[in-house]
Amino acid sequence: MKNEKELIAKAEKPGQDAMKLHPFYRGKVEITPKCRVASFDDFAIWYTPGVAEPCKDIAKHPERVFVHTNKANFVAVVSDGTRVLGLGDIGPEAAMPVMEGKALLFKYLGGVDAFPICVDTKDPDELIDFALKLQPCFGGINLEDIAQPKCFHILDTLREKAHIPVWHDDQQGTASVTTAGVINALRIVGKKKEDVNVVMIGAGASNIAIARVLIKFGVNPKHIIMCDSKDTLHAGRDDLKNDPAWKMKWHFCEITNEKNVTGGPAEAAKGADVMIALSRPGPDTVKPEWIASMAKDAVVFVCANPVPEIWPWKAHAAGARIVATGRSDFPNQVNNSLGFPGIFRGTLDVQAKTITDEMAIAAAQELADIANDKGLHEEYLIPTMDEWEVFPREAVAVGLKAIEQGIARVKASKEELLRQAEDVIRKARAETQLLMKEGFIKLETAERVVTGG
Amino acid sequence: MKNEKELIAKAEKPGQDAMKLHPFYRGKVEITPKCRVASFDDFAIWYTPGVAEPCKDIAKHPERVFVHTNKANFVAVVSDGTRVLGLGDIGPEAAMPVMEGKALLFKYLGGVDAFPICVDTKDPDELIDFALKLQPCFGGINLEDIAQPKCFHILDTLREKAHIPVWHDDQQGTASVTTAGVINALRIVGKKKEDVNVVMIGAGASNIAIARVLIKFGVNPKHIIMCDSKDTLHAGRDDLKNDPAWKMKWHFCEITNEKNVTGGPAEAAKGADVMIALSRPGPDTVKPEWIASMAKDAVVFVCANPVPEIWPWKAHAAGARIVATGRSDFPNQVNNSLGFPGIFRGTLDVQAKTITDEMAIAAAQELADIANDKGLHEEYLIPTMDEWEVFPREAVAVGLKAIEQGIARVKASKEELLRQAEDVIRKARAETQLLMKEGFIKLETAERVVTGG
Repeated sequence: MKNEKELIAKAEKPGQDAMKLHPFYRGKVEITPKCRVASFDDFAIWYTPGVAEPCKDIAKHPERVFVHTNKANFVAVVSDGTRVLGLGDIGPEAAMPVMEGKALLFKYLGGVDAFPICVDTKDPDELIDFALKLQPCFGGINLEDIAQPKCFHILDTLREKAHIPVWHDDQQGTASVTTAGVINALRIVGKKKEDVNVVMIGAGASNIAIARVLIKFGVNPKHIIMCDSKDTLHAGRDDLKNDPAWKMKWHFCEITNEKNVTGGPAEAAKGADVMIALSRPGPDTVKPEWIASMAKDAVVFVCANPVPEIWPWKAHAAGARIVATGRSDFPNQVNNSLGFPGIFRGTLDVQAKTITDEMAIAAAQELADIANDKGLHEEYLIPTMDEWEVFPREAVAVGLKAIEQGIARVKASKEELLRQAEDVIRKARAETQLLMKEGFIKLETAERVVTGG
Repeated sequence: MKNEKELIAKAEKPGQDAMKLHPFYRGKVEITPKCRVASFDDFAIWYTPGVAEPCKDIAKHPERVFVHTNKANFVAVVSDGTRVLGLGDIGPEAAMPVMEGKALLFKYLGGVDAFPICVDTKDPDELIDFALKLQPCFGGINLEDIAQPKCFHILDTLREKAHIPVWHDDQQGTASVTTAGVINALRIVGKKKEDVNVVMIGAGASNIAIARVLIKFGVNPKHIIMCDSKDTLHAGRDDLKNDPAWKMKWHFCEITNEKNVTGGPAEAAKGADVMIALSRPGPDTVKPEWIASMAKDAVVFVCANPVPEIWPWKAHAAGARIVATGRSDFPNQVNNSLGFPGIFRGTLDVQAKTITDEMAIAAAQELADIANDKGLHEEYLIPTMDEWEVFPREAVAVGLKAIEQGIARVKASKEELLRQAEDVIRKARAETQLLMKEGFIKLETAERVVTGG
């Protein structure tokens, strides 16, 4: 058992380093040539006059934009800054550090050329319109940190209207990685997905997406009870029934919570096999007695950041067999970064037209299988970011599912997809390491920034 | 004198190479990390949880987005694809190879992180709205290949409404580099800007912008005669007077052409000291007899691509003393790439709020002075792209002018600006060369792509 103060201090260290290192590096990604510049004459090929030929080719054969440009590997990380991390509506400028960070992860983990686009509007329909206009130059769009309930409308509309994949990482990404954790937790405790009771604390975009994906995966919706800050979701929630903005939440009032449990987490947790909390940062948001009231071999996901809804040792003391959090300094970190880089890698490599829930579940299953292949135990539920095979294997699973579902523009074998994903990701990492080794990226530390001024 | 067929064949070679090398490289720019990734723990600084602190700092102090992110060096290359090169309205997808090429030039020549954004709309007000929404994440916007007359309305509105610099390279960029050429041509022939008569063939976005900048520079508008495809611009052009879309052209009908010359280039060229043609590709668009009718020591800019409005040797034979074209295989190439990378470098380095015509003229003067310092002659009117000092020197001139005009957010000395620009540009080039040397960018040739399949 660790000291709480120490843990909270540890949670604060990255933020302190961030305040020193962000101004030192002034950005996390840059634009770099990816084609030959052997001499200035090459610009006659890449720009006028030579470039006119590929332009004409695309004008005649629109799909050849994937061949003549980097569109196939460009992803827009789009945010309006209305729900940045746990900070709320801090605006598009203040969202930039997150979106640039996301672009960095996209490249380093998935070999994806993602570009941060923080949009100056809060209107959902304007954001939809803006994103649709981005389509000529991007192979996909990753929505990020958009407030609910508008995020549902935005994602659903874009998935319907866009001809490139649109993904909202706070919904689909979190759902995919959490589902991987649930798959393996059930393997460890030996329970079946069809049978388990699930209590979900928080009914934000993430938990709603997790519920949707878990149901598609095979969890019985009747066995799920979701809680928002007022009550459980149940058929008597007239406050939600009458508001079109909360259509999505109301849908879960109708299909979940068969026994019509009302109240809140205390009531909903009784007898549950799995708890999934994505609500207020803790450490006292989830009470030990709620966990104590769960079924034998309780599985507890407490994923608020930076401090989980309950400290893991307290959850264990209350009877949890498996505890997962969002933090890297505890076992079983449930981290979106395990998902989106590999999922987009696979999606882009087959030029899929969308990312279906089935593709997200394929990624979850593969992520779970990677840990399972190595040997699951209570403290090794899902892989960590530094397990190299995670991203190529996810990419293959996602790409094959897209091909199977008939939404891939490019067909390839499992071996081809694996080789391609491995090559691209290996190159991205090696390039970064080279730039550090050669001093193009300085190896500055927060400590040196202090002393060096 | 060269063989015409050979020259036309030579003009076609880059296009042939482009069709082989574009599919080989599949894009010209990529996204690369610019911050330390010493271990996976660093992601806790660059992404959640650490990133929350810079986000909060920007939420409180919006101007610190320039410190915590790469906004200060990000430029959007925005096009709707309605006037791509000389190809017309081929659409935003087909414009992508050009915009990616532009991003490549931005980085290699100016150290600017430019990203290609081809927008799916043809409506000028939608494009304006879209560009304004991009502002949180970019330090500047470079408009490109947008049809006239809407490009005037788009640029003017954006310059008025945006709080970051907006530049239309086909207008301001061309004007800046052409003005540099005119400055030095007049130095060589020993004529004064206040006195010269100028005939302009073509009244597209470029020539209209050139006229505006030349007038601001000191050429007497009464001494300018512009020609469009119908007539000269003169006060009797009722077809233009009554159309609000052509407001800009009408403006030049009013202020230029004091003697009310009508007809076309044949009439307008008589006695002119300088001809600036930016019209249909030649080689027979400009007639030798028009040049023969010009004043002694005639200066002729025939800048259509890929084939100039008249071949240089024919222009010389007709009496021109100085001939400039858009081609790199003749002396005196007038090339936008001599302008925008340095102009944006200087603009971004002082975080200027806009790019004024005075800044564009400062760049033109500096560009002219670089060639002048080295020794002007009829075949060395302006520097070439591979003269290293061009871009840092332009950047300094532009930055100092912005500071002088009170529109710079950052103040710096001439020496500081020079050092900064040199460092950033040197790094961009060295990084590209390193990536080639280490095989991350393969040194493929069009010939090898043929034989290698």
